[in-house]
Amino acid sequence: MRPSGRALNELRTITFERHFTKHAEGSVLVSFGDTRVLCTASVQEGVPPFMRGKGEGWVTAEYGMLPRATNTRNMREAAKGKQSGRTVEIGRLIGRALRNAIDMKALGENTITLDCDVLQADGGTRTAAITGACVALVDALRHLQRNKIITTDPLKHMVAAVSVGLYQGQPVLDLDYAEDANADTDMNVIMTSTGGFVEVQGTAEGEPMTPEQLNSLLSLAAEGIRTLLDQQTQVLRDA
Amino acid sequence: MRPSGRALNELRTITFERHFTKHAEGSVLVSFGDTRVLCTASVQEGVPPFMRGKGEGWVTAEYGMLPRATNTRNMREAAKGKQSGRTVEIGRLIGRALRNAIDMKALGENTITLDCDVLQADGGTRTAAITGACVALVDALRHLQRNKIITTDPLKHMVAAVSVGLYQGQPVLDLDYAEDANADTDMNVIMTSTGGFVEVQGTAEGEPMTPEQLNSLLSLAAEGIRTLLDQQTQVLRDA
Amino acid sequence: MRPSGRALNELRTITFERHFTKHAEGSVLVSFGDTRVLCTASVQEGVPPFMRGKGEGWVTAEYGMLPRATNTRNMREAAKGKQSGRTVEIGRLIGRALRNAIDMKALGENTITLDCDVLQADGGTRTAAITGACVALVDALRHLQRNKIITTDPLKHMVAAVSVGLYQGQPVLDLDYAEDANADTDMNVIMTSTGGFVEVQGTAEGEPMTPEQLNSLLSLAAEGIRTLLDQQTQVLRDA
Amino acid sequence: MRPSGRALNELRTITFERHFTKHAEGSVLVSFGDTRVLCTASVQEGVPPFMRGKGEGWVTAEYGMLPRATNTRNMREAAKGKQSGRTVEIGRLIGRALRNAIDMKALGENTITLDCDVLQADGGTRTAAITGACVALVDALRHLQRNKIITTDPLKHMVAAVSVGLYQGQPVLDLDYAEDANADTDMNVIMTSTGGFVEVQGTAEGEPMTPEQLNSLLSLAAEGIRTLLDQQTQVLRDA
Amino acid sequence: MRPSGRALNELRTITFERHFTKHAEGSVLVSFGDTRVLCTASVQEGVPPFMRGKGEGWVTAEYGMLPRATNTRNMREAAKGKQSGRTVEIGRLIGRALRNAIDMKALGENTITLDCDVLQADGGTRTAAITGACVALVDALRHLQRNKIITTDPLKHMVAAVSVGLYQGQPVLDLDYAEDANADTDMNVIMTSTGGFVEVQGTAEGEPMTPEQLNSLLSLAAEGIRTLLDQQTQVLRDA
Amino acid sequence: MRPSGRALNELRTITFERHFTKHAEGSVLVSFGDTRVLCTASVQEGVPPFMRGKGEGWVTAEYGMLPRATNTRNMREAAKGKQSGRTVEIGRLIGRALRNAIDMKALGENTITLDCDVLQADGGTRTAAITGACVALVDALRHLQRNKIITTDPLKHMVAAVSVGLYQGQPVLDLDYAEDANADTDMNVIMTSTGGFVEVQGTAEGEPMTPEQLNSLLSLAAEGIRTLLDQQTQVLRDA
Repeated sequence: MRPSGRALNELRTITFERHFTKHAEGSVLVSFGDTRVLCTASVQEGVPPFMRGKGEGWVTAEYGMLPRATNTRNMREAAKGKQSGRTVEIGRLIGRALRNAIDMKALGENTITLDCDVLQADGGTRTAAITGACVALVDALRHLQRNKIITTDPLKHMVAAVSVGLYQGQPVLDLDYAEDANADTDMNVIMTSTGGFVEVQGTAEGEPMTPEQLNSLLSLAAEGIRTLLDQQTQVLRDA
Repeated sequence: MRPSGRALNELRTITFERHFTKHAEGSVLVSFGDTRVLCTASVQEGVPPFMRGKGEGWVTAEYGMLPRATNTRNMREAAKGKQSGRTVEIGRLIGRALRNAIDMKALGENTITLDCDVLQADGGTRTAAITGACVALVDALRHLQRNKIITTDPLKHMVAAVSVGLYQGQPVLDLDYAEDANADTDMNVIMTSTGGFVEVQGTAEGEPMTPEQLNSLLSLAAEGIRTLLDQQTQVLRDA
Repeated sequence: MRPSGRALNELRTITFERHFTKHAEGSVLVSFGDTRVLCTASVQEGVPPFMRGKGEGWVTAEYGMLPRATNTRNMREAAKGKQSGRTVEIGRLIGRALRNAIDMKALGENTITLDCDVLQADGGTRTAAITGACVALVDALRHLQRNKIITTDPLKHMVAAVSVGLYQGQPVLDLDYAEDANADTDMNVIMTSTGGFVEVQGTAEGEPMTPEQLNSLLSLAAEGIRTLLDQQTQVLRDA
Repeated sequence: MRPSGRALNELRTITFERHFTKHAEGSVLVSFGDTRVLCTASVQEGVPPFMRGKGEGWVTAEYGMLPRATNTRNMREAAKGKQSGRTVEIGRLIGRALRNAIDMKALGENTITLDCDVLQADGGTRTAAITGACVALVDALRHLQRNKIITTDPLKHMVAAVSVGLYQGQPVLDLDYAEDANADTDMNVIMTSTGGFVEVQGTAEGEPMTPEQLNSLLSLAAEGIRTLLDQQTQVLRDA
Repeated sequence: MRPSGRALNELRTITFERHFTKHAEGSVLVSFGDTRVLCTASVQEGVPPFMRGKGEGWVTAEYGMLPRATNTRNMREAAKGKQSGRTVEIGRLIGRALRNAIDMKALGENTITLDCDVLQADGGTRTAAITGACVALVDALRHLQRNKIITTDPLKHMVAAVSVGLYQGQPVLDLDYAEDANADTDMNVIMTSTGGFVEVQGTAEGEPMTPEQLNSLLSLAAEGIRTLLDQQTQVLRDA
Repeated sequence: MRPSGRALNELRTITFERHFTKHAEGSVLVSFGDTRVLCTASVQEGVPPFMRGKGEGWVTAEYGMLPRATNTRNMREAAKGKQSGRTVEIGRLIGRALRNAIDMKALGENTITLDCDVLQADGGTRTAAITGACVALVDALRHLQRNKIITTDPLKHMVAAVSVGLYQGQPVLDLDYAEDANADTDMNVIMTSTGGFVEVQGTAEGEPMTPEQLNSLLSLAAEGIRTLLDQQTQVLRDA
């Protein structure tokens, strides 16, 4: 029934390519099927003004999309001189999600910036970005520990994210663009490796959701995220 | 236990002052306790370029906050030359919520813009804005019908919104600023008068939510929204 | 002869609602007939860089108009990313007028920002803003004295403002929108409670003014401002 | 008593250099002493959208100052990406003043843009700009007539402007920078060759003005402007 | 002598990965050693306003760099709201170079936009971008021919580019970052497959160049570009 | 053959008017025929943040064009809120050229900003700007020495610039607008009084250049620049 022929609770092929670029302390090309996002984690000494003097660190994120990552070319935001509301909103979402994973005291007065740039889009770019950025973040934390800049591991738990939605009346996992464009309801769910919800954002574009639908979507997301968390663990096993 | 002494499932005093200003087709000053938002609905003939020629209408929203609506003065966004990410995000949220209430075919090629400007902030400005804007929207629709610009009522259902959160481990309804600033989890829920969820946005700032907590927050929100929908109906009874 | 039926030298109904919002040190909703402007005075410790180290204070102002304060909706300046020339010009005018009222030495190194936001416009928004902002300013000065931040009263004199113009060849006081849109000449006059002129801005849109017309407009303004100064005094009598 | 040794009612040396640049339909370098402003009048077929279809023309103006026109270098507004409030305000003032001189019906659907760029500043740049721009405007009107684009002369009357102020308690004419920086009151007056006032803008920076002071300043300005109008006439005598 | 151990006239390893992303009509990941640039060619029907009605096409380019493409993170230009002078300058250079390769009549009223986004920078990003963009451009032209949108091949000749410079007094080919940062003179040369120069941009940062040095740099560039043109031909052999 | 009747290797009439404005430490109105550029050199104590603490100075430049410097009016960049790519590019070019002339150690921690504003354009504005700015720079250096702010002369050599191009197949020197608009190839060359090349920027708009054409253009430029350097020396002879 799904355009891709996937089962209702089936993720797309997920891959993580660590060390995709050489300069960043963490650099991961994450793919959720044809959605490919380059996630880099950049470490910088010091914290922004509003955080200074607390002995705590900071984690922030920015999101972008190459002009031709999508089917038709979008005007370049740098050329327009303005990020769209959608872009800013997703950057803020990624930042909140990743901050949830970190013990800021253990990070010390260091800032980690996660840049998530979509090279190719096919639905679910924000959930791919969060899932990939968490791997890049771990690489950056290892860099800090290897270089004795910090002495304890600031990672409290991993976070991963997936989208779920109602497509032709059925709850489906990890929507691609063909599904996303036609779904009645789209929900992005972010969870931790400890099984808790960090963020739930569900929107009914058409028919409002019943409480039952909302619950079945949340369960489906939880199941998908467990798989994603496993794959993150796998790919981080290699030094 | 709550700073305001309210019961866990108790809303603040809710008031709607219709026709607060004279020029707009709908104009409502909504108060959720000390949070006061002026919501105007402006009707304009025609629709934005991307909607032209479909015989359908459009509903959009913008959000703003007066510089001294809060405890310390915020720089004026018009003077900075840029809306904050938060401002844009809330405007988009209000727009999505209100579009859900409208049958765009019945609206015809007309645009309704909802401006929600916070005169005084004490937590929950976005949920007050949505709840008040829906009343202003109905007044604007009545104006269109009264002036024979449209012949059928485009309203599919009312929408209302409330925030819920975990404060000192307890689920509480309609958080004021004192609670909001200290809550572990904050969730904004938008529902229709037909009992469906239009939008659910929950964020765990601290501890991730368990599925049980998530469920109890959703139930608490649903209960509060039923009351808000009743009050909207009351206030709209007067011509 | 006037659209409103007022006498040539008759002001509209003037009201001041002090403490209209709760956060600002001064907060006044001023009405000149249907023109309603929310004026808040915000106190901040310290002064801008160009004033530092002189032991003197600073008073500044910003002006804004809600998108639907007028008959047709104006695009939100924060969304456009730019304040109009008119907006900036009026903000500068209000700031100059109120600075004239204050002994900066007595204010010490504190800044008071006056935000004048038009909720509903019907002509004369800038003169209403100045007249209301002066009341809000006094409330802010009382706050500073009550809290022992300053020891002497920095107020040198009150200021108030009114518009006058030539409407159908006749000098009229306090023009509303229906008059303003059709007046040949429009003049805004700001005076002190000591009877001096702080600012005179007259523009002939059509026929240039004769010296006699200019003089009769100035007299008419002086008369109206005396009444406004009386009303400010009245409303400030309550603690 | 004046830093320049001038009499109280003495203008600086005024010169107009017509055809200063070759491309513009009118191009005048005006000097009020050391204040030098290049005023160009550019003719363009058609009018802005809000004027279309009325068979009338439009006159508008922009003001600028080269970064090192003043004693210390100012940041270039094009590089800052924003015109200052002062810049926009002066451009609007020049535009209003020159529109007053023109019969828009006679101009037909043509736009004349006056660009006033200060090459060297020494006080009174806006009054020099208006006085010079009026000469450039006449040259542009002659161009339109010579090329048979219009058949009647749209000029209703000349306009000229001067500043007056209270310097050390005395009314003085045409303030230079040394006086302007120390004057209590500064007033810019724009008049027509028919003896009417187009615009009066007076500001008391220090002591408020008495009605008598205001009157003596207006008289002094009227006297100076008569001389300026004579000089404009002189310089326009040459073809 | 070179940090990389290369011979003076030795290029870095050059690779082209065609069809790197799936949406664009042409999409090439070009590598000049560690410099990696994603070049996409996007076809759009129609031309910009200034080209309309001539029956000719248009080719334009934009350049960008991911925030962490370099050794230290650069602020995202979209977030700053402004492209740097360098970014705009390189985009204009790429556009001019590629327009030189195209017969605009044969292209018809179609626009091709080349987006060159640097994923990883190690010197020579603009020359890599031009060389890769030309391959992407050919793929886009093939797409247009395959889809019968155009009937003749608009490609007049291939273009390729390389940097040369004086490093420790010696002319070297294809500078990497370590050389670029220390070179006295840096020159970017763009040539056609017909052996002509399209653009020559040489800058002496330190000592000015002698005419002899200039000549030897031009010869060295010509030699390197011949190799690049061969490699472009190779990689385009595959359908 | 040239529209102006000049010989192929003939410069336009070149003039320098030193001390054109009074505030700047250096102020030169340079004319290359009808192209007239006002170049001011402004001295400021201190250097930008990235240069601090090295005991070295800084030289930078900005370029602008008055709206009606050209045949048709261009929109004012300050009003658009954005400098064009061309404007920024030329400012950067002027800055690089002039920095090449200066021993930054001898300048000490002082900044010299060169503002080049085109009053009238007729081709070759950037080369006129560089040639004139170098004269203004020398005047600013003399000011610094006269005022004992620096003790040695930081000038290493003069720089001057000229454009050359292929017009109707012939190499021509110092193109005016009529030639520039029709030239196949346009090259800007900057050289020092010591005979070295500082910058070479050649672009083939139409046919690519052969190596022979490139060489003959470079020789022609070198010949023209020698004359310009002589004229700079002449004009600087006067105190």
